[in-house]
Amino acid sequence: MNILIINGPNLNLLGVREKSIYGNQSFDDYFKCLKDIFSDVSLSYFQSNSEGAIIDKLHEVGFSIDGIVLNAGAYTHTSLAIADAIAAINVPVVEVHISNVFKRETIRHHSFISSVCKGSIVGFGLDSYRLAVQSFHLLNEKS
Amino acid sequence: MNILIINGPNLNLLGVREKSIYGNQSFDDYFKCLKDIFSDVSLSYFQSNSEGAIIDKLHEVGFSIDGIVLNAGAYTHTSLAIADAIAAINVPVVEVHISNVFKRETIRHHSFISSVCKGSIVGFGLDSYRLAVQSFHLLNEKS
Amino acid sequence: MNILIINGPNLNLLGVREKSIYGNQSFDDYFKCLKDIFSDVSLSYFQSNSEGAIIDKLHEVGFSIDGIVLNAGAYTHTSLAIADAIAAINVPVVEVHISNVFKRETIRHHSFISSVCKGSIVGFGLDSYRLAVQSFHLLNEKS
Amino acid sequence: MNILIINGPNLNLLGVREKSIYGNQSFDDYFKCLKDIFSDVSLSYFQSNSEGAIIDKLHEVGFSIDGIVLNAGAYTHTSLAIADAIAAINVPVVEVHISNVFKRETIRHHSFISSVCKGSIVGFGLDSYRLAVQSFHLLNEKS
Amino acid sequence: MNILIINGPNLNLLGVREKSIYGNQSFDDYFKCLKDIFSDVSLSYFQSNSEGAIIDKLHEVGFSIDGIVLNAGAYTHTSLAIADAIAAINVPVVEVHISNVFKRETIRHHSFISSVCKGSIVGFGLDSYRLAVQSFHLLNEKS
Amino acid sequence: MNILIINGPNLNLLGVREKSIYGNQSFDDYFKCLKDIFSDVSLSYFQSNSEGAIIDKLHEVGFSIDGIVLNAGAYTHTSLAIADAIAAINVPVVEVHISNVFKRETIRHHSFISSVCKGSIVGFGLDSYRLAVQSFHLLNEKS
Amino acid sequence: MNILIINGPNLNLLGVREKSIYGNQSFDDYFKCLKDIFSDVSLSYFQSNSEGAIIDKLHEVGFSIDGIVLNAGAYTHTSLAIADAIAAINVPVVEVHISNVFKRETIRHHSFISSVCKGSIVGFGLDSYRLAVQSFHLLNEKS
Amino acid sequence: MNILIINGPNLNLLGVREKSIYGNQSFDDYFKCLKDIFSDVSLSYFQSNSEGAIIDKLHEVGFSIDGIVLNAGAYTHTSLAIADAIAAINVPVVEVHISNVFKRETIRHHSFISSVCKGSIVGFGLDSYRLAVQSFHLLNEKS
Amino acid sequence: MNILIINGPNLNLLGVREKSIYGNQSFDDYFKCLKDIFSDVSLSYFQSNSEGAIIDKLHEVGFSIDGIVLNAGAYTHTSLAIADAIAAINVPVVEVHISNVFKRETIRHHSFISSVCKGSIVGFGLDSYRLAVQSFHLLNEKS
Amino acid sequence: MNILIINGPNLNLLGVREKSIYGNQSFDDYFKCLKDIFSDVSLSYFQSNSEGAIIDKLHEVGFSIDGIVLNAGAYTHTSLAIADAIAAINVPVVEVHISNVFKRETIRHHSFISSVCKGSIVGFGLDSYRLAVQSFHLLNEKS
Amino acid sequence: MNILIINGPNLNLLGVREKSIYGNQSFDDYFKCLKDIFSDVSLSYFQSNSEGAIIDKLHEVGFSIDGIVLNAGAYTHTSLAIADAIAAINVPVVEVHISNVFKRETIRHHSFISSVCKGSIVGFGLDSYRLAVQSFHLLNEKS
Amino acid sequence: MNILIINGPNLNLLGVREKSIYGNQSFDDYFKCLKDIFSDVSLSYFQSNSEGAIIDKLHEVGFSIDGIVLNAGAYTHTSLAIADAIAAINVPVVEVHISNVFKRETIRHHSFISSVCKGSIVGFGLDSYRLAVQSFHLLNEKS
Repeated sequence: MNILIINGPNLNLLGVREKSIYGNQSFDDYFKCLKDIFSDVSLSYFQSNSEGAIIDKLHEVGFSIDGIVLNAGAYTHTSLAIADAIAAINVPVVEVHISNVFKRETIRHHSFISSVCKGSIVGFGLDSYRLAVQSFHLLNEKS
Repeated sequence: MNILIINGPNLNLLGVREKSIYGNQSFDDYFKCLKDIFSDVSLSYFQSNSEGAIIDKLHEVGFSIDGIVLNAGAYTHTSLAIADAIAAINVPVVEVHISNVFKRETIRHHSFISSVCKGSIVGFGLDSYRLAVQSFHLLNEKS
Repeated sequence: MNILIINGPNLNLLGVREKSIYGNQSFDDYFKCLKDIFSDVSLSYFQSNSEGAIIDKLHEVGFSIDGIVLNAGAYTHTSLAIADAIAAINVPVVEVHISNVFKRETIRHHSFISSVCKGSIVGFGLDSYRLAVQSFHLLNEKS
Repeated sequence: MNILIINGPNLNLLGVREKSIYGNQSFDDYFKCLKDIFSDVSLSYFQSNSEGAIIDKLHEVGFSIDGIVLNAGAYTHTSLAIADAIAAINVPVVEVHISNVFKRETIRHHSFISSVCKGSIVGFGLDSYRLAVQSFHLLNEKS
Repeated sequence: MNILIINGPNLNLLGVREKSIYGNQSFDDYFKCLKDIFSDVSLSYFQSNSEGAIIDKLHEVGFSIDGIVLNAGAYTHTSLAIADAIAAINVPVVEVHISNVFKRETIRHHSFISSVCKGSIVGFGLDSYRLAVQSFHLLNEKS
Repeated sequence: MNILIINGPNLNLLGVREKSIYGNQSFDDYFKCLKDIFSDVSLSYFQSNSEGAIIDKLHEVGFSIDGIVLNAGAYTHTSLAIADAIAAINVPVVEVHISNVFKRETIRHHSFISSVCKGSIVGFGLDSYRLAVQSFHLLNEKS
Repeated sequence: MNILIINGPNLNLLGVREKSIYGNQSFDDYFKCLKDIFSDVSLSYFQSNSEGAIIDKLHEVGFSIDGIVLNAGAYTHTSLAIADAIAAINVPVVEVHISNVFKRETIRHHSFISSVCKGSIVGFGLDSYRLAVQSFHLLNEKS
Repeated sequence: MNILIINGPNLNLLGVREKSIYGNQSFDDYFKCLKDIFSDVSLSYFQSNSEGAIIDKLHEVGFSIDGIVLNAGAYTHTSLAIADAIAAINVPVVEVHISNVFKRETIRHHSFISSVCKGSIVGFGLDSYRLAVQSFHLLNEKS
Repeated sequence: MNILIINGPNLNLLGVREKSIYGNQSFDDYFKCLKDIFSDVSLSYFQSNSEGAIIDKLHEVGFSIDGIVLNAGAYTHTSLAIADAIAAINVPVVEVHISNVFKRETIRHHSFISSVCKGSIVGFGLDSYRLAVQSFHLLNEKS
Repeated sequence: MNILIINGPNLNLLGVREKSIYGNQSFDDYFKCLKDIFSDVSLSYFQSNSEGAIIDKLHEVGFSIDGIVLNAGAYTHTSLAIADAIAAINVPVVEVHISNVFKRETIRHHSFISSVCKGSIVGFGLDSYRLAVQSFHLLNEKS
Repeated sequence: MNILIINGPNLNLLGVREKSIYGNQSFDDYFKCLKDIFSDVSLSYFQSNSEGAIIDKLHEVGFSIDGIVLNAGAYTHTSLAIADAIAAINVPVVEVHISNVFKRETIRHHSFISSVCKGSIVGFGLDSYRLAVQSFHLLNEKS
Repeated sequence: MNILIINGPNLNLLGVREKSIYGNQSFDDYFKCLKDIFSDVSLSYFQSNSEGAIIDKLHEVGFSIDGIVLNAGAYTHTSLAIADAIAAINVPVVEVHISNVFKRETIRHHSFISSVCKGSIVGFGLDSYRLAVQSFHLLNEKS
């Protein structure tokens, strides 16, 4: 099973900024743990601050791999183009958010991409990624 | 680990109505599977069509068990009182939805309870419950 | 032909309050007249001030009888859960209102249940119920 | 008892367009049936695609006959002038719609004329007209 | 003088939850003090988490006692049915809130029941109840 | 000086309906008085319930006479087409209303035509027409 | 007949600012002309930039004179307090505006005071005042 | 190929009003040029200021010719009834506008008819009509 | 204990206007009664129609006395500046309204000052002032 | 005549995704046909999923070529920056859309770029591009 | 160069209230520093809590001095009359705010006066005034 | 002191487009002057039309230099991602705009970034940049 995790804008700063809140762990470190946990899954990872680069990546892998875990960051709330990209590809996408976006400003309560994703996992910290990968596992199990 | 699953209005009809969509499996059957999967968790289950009864139940267990998985059905979108009950208790609550509510009518895009829950898991069919129980497991693992 | 009339909150006070407007006739008295008029229909009647109890009743009869006449009172304008219950059952439901709700405050202009009912009959006083029962009669006639 | 049925814009196409949905029956044919059913009522019928012509007709009959059954079609949702005409005349008007307008686009959920009509009957197919005529019958019975 | 205090959802948790904010005093304890202060008033008390049960109680006492003090909790902001019940009974109702609801989320700024109550007393802590009972006293004094 | 008064929908019923409010005077009678008062003005009068006919009339006279007094009735609040007609012609138009529209329903607070008229005179009963004719007189006086 | 003209904020600058638009005539000069035209009316004039001072003046004359002509300037669109003052006094008030406010920014399309005034005259330049005084004349004529 | 051009309200004034903007060319003159350009198309032309007359014309030709080019003028933004007429007929309709309506007031940004037309051509001056006829040509070419 | 009552715009007309509603009692008379009732409180009274004067007064007393009872009249609904003044001073302010503002026009349902006051007392007639003074008494009692 | 066609996000997938709807033809193939049809026009083509790259391209060609045909895809509905780029350059831009965007979700009904383009052509499938190029042709013809 | 600083409501309390936030420095003290820094500018200062007095002052100096620095406090968000005064005078006005108003409640995000001022300087503490005076300096330098 | 000026989309066209408005001066030329004025500041400059590139740059310098002056152009009004980047870095950011954005279309009145910047300087032409650099100077002076 091939799964790609895509992180959107500012998520490259995890572990650098606001350590008291987010901890010292960078996403690279977390990603290594994740690979250990899901040793039977071929996990890869991509990050970009550019809306266009995220769309390019979705097109690139969107007809061949088994699943995409997408944390689109702030683009979640402003990008219809990413939503269209998700709708255009065949690979199922699971939306994740580290924080509970519904506790934050109103603009973060609306997601352009929820309605074109398979499902959403919100608010479990970095565990949101783990549960998302797990959801593809369950799917696999059944088929 | 003690976890209670609470289902809100109309979810007692699972497996009875619209079988072509939801399948033949009633929630009782699914619940048995769930207990098998999480054999180390003490899982229990409660369903009611009454807003007041759901609040009563949240109060009853909300200071003693380890976690609550809540699918509040339509009350998700209309009940400030259930949200207040969640905020008033100590036990963490995870919100789940079977269908992807963001693909449905606008009124179902707003949840009164998301902002007072630990997190939300939306759109994975009955697997949403499994991922929710799993999320408490992860939490447990760490502490 | 089996038809159930369901009345929602505060409709138990008909004939008690504001007699100058609503008259001295309680719904029980009116119901007796209705049974006389439709002597070939098996009419029954249920009232509750509780949203949950109305949903329970809809589930109970919603797969077996021939028609439901529903005056959901104020829940018409606030209950998505009752709307979901109507959508989940097989028996057709006709929405009725005694007064012309469109002459009243703005909140009463929107009904959560209209879109899941077969039809709506609004503003004919207690005759709204009679026309609703009549509408099932017409249906019956044709089949 | 003299009753006039007024049909607004595009209702002259009944039985011509979309036969699979509306059937082969033109309103003229249906109107003949209606006259048979209500043999003791003097029923007449008027149709126009023009807002002004509908107002003219309401003025013409609005101080002399016993009741008006009005399906204003799309003008229901855009014409304050027809609403004013109804408010200005003495004859009671019953609003009807063939389809359940509350299942359709948002603009069709608001009616300018509901608040000045005696009552509304919505969603019973062509039977909506029959129930409307019936409602005047009931009124007559009592006086 | 007979006065009933009605408390809505989650108010049974006073003195249990968030003691640093609300203090250690349960409403039962406070109620005893209140009875001591107003020794010439027959005070009684009812609490429920169910919208329907609150309506039932309003109907039960609403034509016989002298006044009702109502803290409808979250139902204040979502229940048109309770507002209709207040409008339907004869006994005057005074709305109270412990906290200053206008300092909280926007949804708590609108009350369905204010417009059908005699008056509102908001933000004085538990003293809001005392001032409400006092308001009936003043009324009594004058008549 | 040639001035045309145009009355829109339902204004032909003046003096017929609601006499206790509007009096026994038809607009024809009032128009005779107006001609007496302004004996040096060539006054004429047109009424129609049809939006299209009002536009036709505005085109017909809109490049030749000295002024138009327009009470567009309900079309004031719904007709962009009449507003466009006023903007397209050369003759200045003064908007009048008999009643104070700002005391009535919200929809009557917005006028499509105010912004393309020379000015508006609202709320002086039938005297609104007299003041409007007077306003053209003043203009004439100066030039 | 005693009539007071009240001008609100910034209207003291007439004839000083933007002469190409408003002309060289100050309101004082215009007021002299107005007194000449209405030689049988006792006209007086008051201007203030202060909301409170305008309310004070309305109270002072509002129970004794025959009419008030009010151009509240920008307070038209922001002052509920002036509207309340007009509603509280006995003397009829006519609202005037020099420019056609409906051609300007959206905020100027809503007037707090229109609904409590006898009528409104908008867009006739300084002639708006003359027509307003004239309107009291007509009233006088009839009584 | 039979194509009808329908022009709505005020478009009869082209070439008469505001010549500096729209030029001296009346639509009749332009129509002649159009017929020359499309010599193999049977082009006809209809104009009315009446909403009802436009609907009548759409019904008359809407089941027999090959295409309709519609500039509904201001009715574009207010007429649901014309939209319903387009939806009810079989002949494809192309919406055109001479000016770029999106550069004008907000109300002109919304079209009731766009969603029921085949396509829209906006802002090319009188050439919008030519491109619209051309679009039917292309269609024809392929079949 | 020193307490100041501040009345805003138009409240100086109490007892003068609309006597059938508000009675013959001026606020001065009522104030005398209030002083008799609270003989142990040093009560004073200030009224102004000017927003600025009310702010000046709040500043003047806002760091020295024990409590302020404020009926800001129409400024309640339009003055952010008075709200800022209340937030800036140390003395607690209780908001009062004579009538039930929630029964009146929508604009009166929102108060700028509620969220910066200690509490609000609404709808008890002149008794609202008495209950407000009482609320400071209770506070005093406890400390 | 030099004309550039710019395609925005996801339009590179034409002919790859959803072939049953869009057909097997890639835009490259279609572009070749277009070049054949307009043999006297120097047509070129650019596609990017990046908002910034589209702006860069508009700047690059926006002061030298004869026309731009722009299908901005989802950026149509979210990009003020592209709209600003169009407004800043000299070359006229024609907006095109393949599908009828007005039949789709509400967010696609608003275009940021329509008001700064010369015109819009919407809903003619790939023919929208052909009509757009044609529109520049007509322009050329005249000059 | 003559420059006047105008401070609106509650700004007289600087240095008195909330010292931990705003510091011990009164505006008078700060003003002395400012005069030292800009020794070649004739700086003066005015403060009022009254909207009318601020307008009076703007009129008084608005045709003679070189610049006005205005912190209108809460009137920024509610006073169209002050905006009109700024538009009516010749002297350029620079808007300043001490705090970053965009971090505060929504009502403070809209300013009535920004659009009629030369520019705005927001969020630099008391330095906002210094930068504003500096901006006039730069202007002067160039001319 | 190290300060970076970042310019967003379309600002590279300064001095190229609309010279009559913006003058002949390119930003490069202006930047040279700025360096001369602030000879003790290490000023650098970056421009991009890409949202992602601006975020990348903010991350790159956002933990090391002394200040950022940001004119985000149209992204000011649409980019939550840039706002998040500003919130995530340590270096203070000052928002600038050349024109007075509050005089332009409504969409430009809202800025996503104001609330996360230190302050905003709007409307002073190119001097806005100078005042922004000056603001960092003041800050420096004090520490």
